[in-house]
Amino acid sequence: MYQLPKSINDLATRLGQLPGVGPKTASRLAFYLVNSRHIDIDGLASSLVNLRASLSKCEICHNLTDVNPCVVCSDRARDDGAICVVEEPLDVLALERAGFKGKYHVLGGQISPLDGVGPDDLEIDSLISRVAGNEGIMEIIVATNPDVEGEATASYLVKRLSPLNRKISRLARGLPMGGDLEYADELTLTRALEGRNQMV
Amino acid sequence: MYQLPKSINDLATRLGQLPGVGPKTASRLAFYLVNSRHIDIDGLASSLVNLRASLSKCEICHNLTDVNPCVVCSDRARDDGAICVVEEPLDVLALERAGFKGKYHVLGGQISPLDGVGPDDLEIDSLISRVAGNEGIMEIIVATNPDVEGEATASYLVKRLSPLNRKISRLARGLPMGGDLEYADELTLTRALEGRNQMV
Repeated sequence: MYQLPKSINDLATRLGQLPGVGPKTASRLAFYLVNSRHIDIDGLASSLVNLRASLSKCEICHNLTDVNPCVVCSDRARDDGAICVVEEPLDVLALERAGFKGKYHVLGGQISPLDGVGPDDLEIDSLISRVAGNEGIMEIIVATNPDVEGEATASYLVKRLSPLNRKISRLARGLPMGGDLEYADELTLTRALEGRNQMV
Repeated sequence: MYQLPKSINDLATRLGQLPGVGPKTASRLAFYLVNSRHIDIDGLASSLVNLRASLSKCEICHNLTDVNPCVVCSDRARDDGAICVVEEPLDVLALERAGFKGKYHVLGGQISPLDGVGPDDLEIDSLISRVAGNEGIMEIIVATNPDVEGEATASYLVKRLSPLNRKISRLARGLPMGGDLEYADELTLTRALEGRNQMV
């Protein structure tokens, strides 16, 4: 059986381990990289090598950062009164795009007994002591994902946070903008009904 | 405005230059690489660096290879009588999967005046002299893509090859297997009608 040249095969195999990259995409990418003149392959390689070197977790919010504390935590112009609790660093990026101007706390995942992730594996204790130690934090916005594990994590956070007597809120669940009611799933529609807003 | 840590941003920008990788996928991949334990990042980097080092074009069929002549051209068990002319190395892989047992000739692209690619930029002269110099080649199967440029390239090849008095064929155009007649585009259906096969 014909085999791809070893160096291409090698790269394709490694690219195929990335999420969302199947074997066909992987070999297409590998061939593309062989031929393409406008991609700096050595630059890509050194970006990979340097990726983790300068990264650490912010000592306050536990987001990935290259300065400590991170740029958000050390930004005095931002609202200290609201902390948005998210699962992953990418969630921070999404909320930034949505225009959130407060601070963050990155849990590092969601409670998921099936994957062996319990509350102690997440940055929950550090959240409790962060809130307890700062009277300025008025509101905790729980922005875990709207899936089963995210909801469970949210419930657990509420249980742990409520003794601290702060406002605790959760991102609204409902119909996505630009979506089509006809195609909305049952659960989303149920949530949208429950959370309906009075107009007049 | 909040920015991703530089090393992540750097990698995401480079990944975003790959075909089919948009900015969101690029940052998702970059974050995945930061966290993932089961991907060998340094290995991926060195695969990239080594990618082109051992590669050359086969002196006979012009496919990418790490031995010269390539494994297909030097395989005595394969049928020397039929040459399949394709545009790109990946097409060879597709035909191998389909079970083709002959030899190949890789043009290196398709004739496309809009992109400034003329016949002289492709391995067409080398195909002519390869066929002319080998009486054993009985059939040339033109397997350029079924798009406008591929058809133009095929016509040009026929013009150049016909003085050599060999059988010249073209891959059948028609309905893709598993497809749905209802969704077939006009041109495909026209071709399928033209190429209909008598059953009884």
